[in-house]
Amino acid sequence: MAVPSTGKRPRVVVVGAGFGGIHAAMDLAKLPVDVTVVDKKNHHTFQPLLYQVALAVLSPGDIAQPIRSMLRNDANTEVIMDEVVAFDTVAHRVDLKSGAELMYDFLIVATGSTHSYFGKDEWAKWAPGLKTLEDATEIRRRVLLTFELAERQKLETGTHPPLNFVIVGGGPTGVELAGAISDIAKLYMTRDFRHIDPGSAQVLILEGSPHILGMYPPDLQLKAVEQLTALGVTTRTDAHVSDIQPGYVLVGEERIESVCTLWAAGVQASPLGKMLGVETDRRGSVLVDDHLHPHGHPDIFVIGDLAHFEQDGKQVPGVAQPAMQMGDYAAKRIGLLLEGKGDKQKPFRYFDKGDMATIGRKAAVARIAWPFHAHWSGFMAWLTWLVVHIFFLIGFRNRWGVFRQWAYTYLRFQDGVRLIVGSQDLPGWGQLAKPDTPERDLPRTPLKKEDAP
Amino acid sequence: MAVPSTGKRPRVVVVGAGFGGIHAAMDLAKLPVDVTVVDKKNHHTFQPLLYQVALAVLSPGDIAQPIRSMLRNDANTEVIMDEVVAFDTVAHRVDLKSGAELMYDFLIVATGSTHSYFGKDEWAKWAPGLKTLEDATEIRRRVLLTFELAERQKLETGTHPPLNFVIVGGGPTGVELAGAISDIAKLYMTRDFRHIDPGSAQVLILEGSPHILGMYPPDLQLKAVEQLTALGVTTRTDAHVSDIQPGYVLVGEERIESVCTLWAAGVQASPLGKMLGVETDRRGSVLVDDHLHPHGHPDIFVIGDLAHFEQDGKQVPGVAQPAMQMGDYAAKRIGLLLEGKGDKQKPFRYFDKGDMATIGRKAAVARIAWPFHAHWSGFMAWLTWLVVHIFFLIGFRNRWGVFRQWAYTYLRFQDGVRLIVGSQDLPGWGQLAKPDTPERDLPRTPLKKEDAP
Repeated sequence: MAVPSTGKRPRVVVVGAGFGGIHAAMDLAKLPVDVTVVDKKNHHTFQPLLYQVALAVLSPGDIAQPIRSMLRNDANTEVIMDEVVAFDTVAHRVDLKSGAELMYDFLIVATGSTHSYFGKDEWAKWAPGLKTLEDATEIRRRVLLTFELAERQKLETGTHPPLNFVIVGGGPTGVELAGAISDIAKLYMTRDFRHIDPGSAQVLILEGSPHILGMYPPDLQLKAVEQLTALGVTTRTDAHVSDIQPGYVLVGEERIESVCTLWAAGVQASPLGKMLGVETDRRGSVLVDDHLHPHGHPDIFVIGDLAHFEQDGKQVPGVAQPAMQMGDYAAKRIGLLLEGKGDKQKPFRYFDKGDMATIGRKAAVARIAWPFHAHWSGFMAWLTWLVVHIFFLIGFRNRWGVFRQWAYTYLRFQDGVRLIVGSQDLPGWGQLAKPDTPERDLPRTPLKKEDAP
Repeated sequence: MAVPSTGKRPRVVVVGAGFGGIHAAMDLAKLPVDVTVVDKKNHHTFQPLLYQVALAVLSPGDIAQPIRSMLRNDANTEVIMDEVVAFDTVAHRVDLKSGAELMYDFLIVATGSTHSYFGKDEWAKWAPGLKTLEDATEIRRRVLLTFELAERQKLETGTHPPLNFVIVGGGPTGVELAGAISDIAKLYMTRDFRHIDPGSAQVLILEGSPHILGMYPPDLQLKAVEQLTALGVTTRTDAHVSDIQPGYVLVGEERIESVCTLWAAGVQASPLGKMLGVETDRRGSVLVDDHLHPHGHPDIFVIGDLAHFEQDGKQVPGVAQPAMQMGDYAAKRIGLLLEGKGDKQKPFRYFDKGDMATIGRKAAVARIAWPFHAHWSGFMAWLTWLVVHIFFLIGFRNRWGVFRQWAYTYLRFQDGVRLIVGSQDLPGWGQLAKPDTPERDLPRTPLKKEDAP
């Protein structure tokens, strides 16, 4: 089955198979080029639904798909699961961790972003973020384990620490995580436990700026706060986290108890931007020109969340839509450049269709920019979110499976996929403040047979 | 939601929520007792399909279900995710790792078995076994990664180690793993790789005894070898593994190259059998009397794979059917004992319906003992396997989802869920014998633009 490179066609190396990279690769399949896609994972992840894996509504397999399978029918495309360790933009070479060296005629770098703990990387242990399937599984493990450990401790000591979940960061990920945690605690889990009341869980969003959902218009920000409040989620803005420790978060000097802290605050660009040796912004994103090239490199494209692209005086946001459009643009441009028609192409322009974030199981906020302008919130926005996300799961094996799973979970208040896989220890649980007032609700002496009915 | 124990009803502690424990618990829900189910996992695993998770046909969520959800409607039942560290059979007490102490009137121990490396625990690192979802995910990771690393190495050096998969142990698990690996390599993966030929994968079963599938009748053993051979799987019997190292397995003095070794050989009883302080066999299983009690403990039951129960001079096998029947028997017996009618109950007798093992995607061997006697092999046996396994997934959220997934995968040769999650390192890959004859099939010098069409 080996398909050796013809050596006759220009080679395009695509680094990263997120929304930008996979769209570029799919389009490049139709061009007279050889394509090499490099990713350190073997799968493309549908990131907008990652929080549903984290909160046990969906399985990892529902929202991720092997990159190889997605590009299987593209005979001019090969996929390498490897990590880039260096670029040589003079020699047109990409060096991989395994030792392989890939020569390129065109290079598309689309490695996105990663968490930033603002230099406090030690917080990662106590407050995991959500970028990968592994992250989602870890968050799921921690959230579910919190309830299990509370039940166990209640049994042993008659009490348990308050079920406070603190989410640092009030962007879309923080809001979606908060709504989902509140939902599963209050709606889905109450019948599962005998000693604790999962519905007593408190969810708190700490946002450093004056507003949650900063990229949304003020009326939707307000609606989001209202809808979160209705779910029992507390939001605090202008709250600057000064420390995260097992069992608590410090906001300034104030200590907030937390059995489970999640990180949805900072992102920083993938280190591959800086590795290119081109101009980057403070976040590490690569400044690109109108054609998505870093300055002075017409054979390189930087797309998606790794690109710093300004339009109408504002930076295009690091979400799926612009990444896909940039991927399409870069592929198209390579085709035109090969035909010598590069100067005929209009500059890239992000076509903004809007933004959406869900708030629990039946509300959302939606800024709709196409095909008409509207600000929606509540159930209507949630339905819109549902339709759009099913639509965009096109090409995913499990589009209808996901829909069925959603329907099942949402309509029947059913299980989802609440499996705890991996360690049964919750980092920091042992360091939690010990409850003061033990009271036992289970007999500690043997029951007598004669008490039996 | 806390449901305090009434303190008025006898308490039954069930340790382990596999087939035996969960059946006992479900039956006990109908009796005037309080039930505490203890398991170190939060989920019940449908073990007969674990190999399909390992080989990326099914997702973990398809074959596992939270114990809490399964017992949610049983108001007299509580579930504790914890580990047993000691039994006090005099004081009628179970001590948990968290520190909690459970008093019992009746105790059911059903913690099954685990891998045995025959004292060579250092082999576990190079040859993982298959008992839990974590094991399945790890085997999946290793099998898929083998192909990824071979593709990567072929790209870099022009060659790769032979894709030899060695499975130690020719019982049902070994046979099912072998058939499935051969299938995914030869049928599903061939279109996914450009440089290596996944179809060149060789699968070898090493069985220490004279026959694979030792518990099956000789004619079915023969059929199984035939069907495995047809799939390209080699079986070697009387093959005693003397060492397992990264990259190879020693059979006596003979070295067999292996990029990925899996363990399906020994099992040993869960250590909880010995912890009871009662008589155990060489494997650590507890010798039980006709009523499934360890000798001298009429308030304790040991059931499932942890019990050593002989019938007609033969030990009842450690599979799902006897475990479920023992669970039902123990629950029923507790009801009768509480009514003072224990002496009215007939001794336990295993009702043998037969055994089945799949061999790849369209063959199996089936020893049918009920409702008629027959030995089937081939496609008919496979269909029987399919129907029986769908039937026994009753109570599982995803019975029809699993069926749909199977249909999709089997009929359309489609993806399954081939996600590599976790580390991207394959233990021992770096220590594999280096290939001798590098030949490069990818250009290592930049392509010239003028070569472009």
